[in-house]
Amino acid sequence: MYKILEGLRVIEASAFVAAPLGGMTLAQLGADVIRFDPIRGGIDARRWPVTKDGRSLYWAGLNKGKRSLAIDSGQPEGRELLTALITAAGEGKGIFSTNLRADKGWMSYDELRKRREDLIMVNLIGSSDGSSAVDYTVNCAAGFPFVTGNQRGDGPPKPVNHVLPAWDALAGINLALAVLAAERHRRLTGAGQLVRLALSDIAFAMTGNLGFIQEVEINHEDRKGCGNYLYGAYGSEFETRDKRWLYIVVVTGYMWKELLKTTGLGDAIGAIESRLGLDFKKEGDRFIGSDEISVPICEWCSQRTLAEIEETFNGTGVCWGPYRSFRQMLEEDPRVSTSNPMFSELEQPGIGRYLVPGSPISFGAFDREPPRRAPLLGEHTDEILSNDLGLSDSEIGRLRESGVVAGPVEVT
Amino acid sequence: MYKILEGLRVIEASAFVAAPLGGMTLAQLGADVIRFDPIRGGIDARRWPVTKDGRSLYWAGLNKGKRSLAIDSGQPEGRELLTALITAAGEGKGIFSTNLRADKGWMSYDELRKRREDLIMVNLIGSSDGSSAVDYTVNCAAGFPFVTGNQRGDGPPKPVNHVLPAWDALAGINLALAVLAAERHRRLTGAGQLVRLALSDIAFAMTGNLGFIQEVEINHEDRKGCGNYLYGAYGSEFETRDKRWLYIVVVTGYMWKELLKTTGLGDAIGAIESRLGLDFKKEGDRFIGSDEISVPICEWCSQRTLAEIEETFNGTGVCWGPYRSFRQMLEEDPRVSTSNPMFSELEQPGIGRYLVPGSPISFGAFDREPPRRAPLLGEHTDEILSNDLGLSDSEIGRLRESGVVAGPVEVT
Repeated sequence: MYKILEGLRVIEASAFVAAPLGGMTLAQLGADVIRFDPIRGGIDARRWPVTKDGRSLYWAGLNKGKRSLAIDSGQPEGRELLTALITAAGEGKGIFSTNLRADKGWMSYDELRKRREDLIMVNLIGSSDGSSAVDYTVNCAAGFPFVTGNQRGDGPPKPVNHVLPAWDALAGINLALAVLAAERHRRLTGAGQLVRLALSDIAFAMTGNLGFIQEVEINHEDRKGCGNYLYGAYGSEFETRDKRWLYIVVVTGYMWKELLKTTGLGDAIGAIESRLGLDFKKEGDRFIGSDEISVPICEWCSQRTLAEIEETFNGTGVCWGPYRSFRQMLEEDPRVSTSNPMFSELEQPGIGRYLVPGSPISFGAFDREPPRRAPLLGEHTDEILSNDLGLSDSEIGRLRESGVVAGPVEVT
Repeated sequence: MYKILEGLRVIEASAFVAAPLGGMTLAQLGADVIRFDPIRGGIDARRWPVTKDGRSLYWAGLNKGKRSLAIDSGQPEGRELLTALITAAGEGKGIFSTNLRADKGWMSYDELRKRREDLIMVNLIGSSDGSSAVDYTVNCAAGFPFVTGNQRGDGPPKPVNHVLPAWDALAGINLALAVLAAERHRRLTGAGQLVRLALSDIAFAMTGNLGFIQEVEINHEDRKGCGNYLYGAYGSEFETRDKRWLYIVVVTGYMWKELLKTTGLGDAIGAIESRLGLDFKKEGDRFIGSDEISVPICEWCSQRTLAEIEETFNGTGVCWGPYRSFRQMLEEDPRVSTSNPMFSELEQPGIGRYLVPGSPISFGAFDREPPRRAPLLGEHTDEILSNDLGLSDSEIGRLRESGVVAGPVEVT
């Protein structure tokens, strides 16, 4: 983590991927992020993947570096404590991030603002029309599943979801960005605001940014699947002699020249170029000729092991990479190890010791500090009530007894 | 667009998806983003998708709201003008974003800092080990292609790339976040810095955040593909009577109850639950029973049209959505139309009129203003030289004549 956002405090009421990721992104840059949850845990406290003992690797992954408060917001006292925490006085305070329904009731912007006029509240919702939506139901609406997978435009396409929850991930980073933009504005003008973003808008905006809307409206074309090919350029997957897979991609003239030179396939591919009447100096023509270009490269790869290909390509201008399963990634790729400063090993209580990424951003003005683990549910309840809300030990004891707060709580 | 980042100016030397998207994200929040390119256009000026006339929809999509300067940085005068622009005096100025090689030469942090000590430079690189990498060669290393697609864990998996350049997209938003974090720090302390991020780290950090590293290290499991199922919960795709597809997802107990109630399949699925000895109140058990749960739902969907299913589900707590191609998205989904304030129609010169998304973030303290189109290459060359660099018309004329600057330039 870094200390670049030190002094910023965000209170978070969240679940699932996007909103927890947004808060974690800020925590990894040094913000003090307090996530509050029901005293038996929120809806994602037990989410898969889990360990053999039922502990959630999901929770541990998406809440690193936060403090955790377990509190019953169903009780008036719980709500009052949370309201005080969210609206606390102080320059970097008064920032509330949530992906829960917060358009009415005590968690709404209008209610909270009564206690702190310059409150910043960032509310991530599912769908811009107010309906519920998650990554998978947004993804299916945004066109990509019909062009993903091995379908190549013949026959009616079958939808293939990407497994990466890409829209959630993007929404999380956008949420962090929204917090910083709003905090900058408050710093300059003194004004708070309600900031809203919808997961569906995240997806549709990106779809439009990447040209898919224009293809329909301007070119009157509905993009067809092209398997693993890189649309509009040259990129394809190949199997090696030892049954591994790699991807080769060409997005510059230099990469193309280097590929031909390194494989020695210049003449063979030049003959294809002449036969097809294409100009492979042009990126679009390389895409058009993808099937034919791939034939000699496919043969070339099938005659070599991955290690041999690696030796041939390394140090050249060929842009390529081996496919790896998650296990192979950990076993083979030094970029996913402690030799990469982004990664550290740390101990997550109840789970064990494993490799944990910090922020992917390196700030030159700061030393990178080791990542911090995820909290146990309610691990910081007493600390927050005492230090942040100024409650006495006896008051905390009473709140615990009446079930308003708890923690640390075993969640399995 | 919004004016929330008004006063911030970013100079950008970029290509492809991530870095242009980062700058555009800031421009859509009101920052003044000047992208500079070679006078015949950079490597992505003609990138597919293109119109029938060869105009790049890609460029138009990823550079909205920026100003464009066409300049030959191969000439000393060009480099001097760019150095002056990047290091210009002024509070919100002195921010340089690039994904080009910038570790040495005039564009390096060390060189530029000589002219402005509090410079902020954000450099996005491909791979953390210094090798070249693009979305596709990072993606293949990060495990996802072996679990994406219709493979369900039997037989050796074949890699399936996602078509969405998800890592590029994430890197772009992270880049914008990095700019705001560094600018906040400079405002508070006066100090600039070099900020670096690698596309490979974006991918590997997210892979770790989502629990895939822990599954290998703690559970000693390499995640197997599960097709379109939502791992660890219940989610699946279904075909309707009229040959459309939809996705149904259950991530809360309420969604599960509503699905059973709305489809009337409670008894049928209860019988499955008993037979399998599972407890479908538990999310993990619903995942384990996915194949069996899907049988009656599949039959239910196959007996109904998409319109009938929509009528049944709408207004209930069922979380679902229809799959749509890009064309269907535009034709059917009101969220992708001007009835969504995020979208406006605008005219892109040389291309035509189409639907353009603004920022997916809504800032309550600002009115949303219409999105701005992408510039023509070099459209703002004169304006920048005159207003930002204070050059006279005759000086500009001389620079044009000697081929140091140009624009607007037709790029086809």
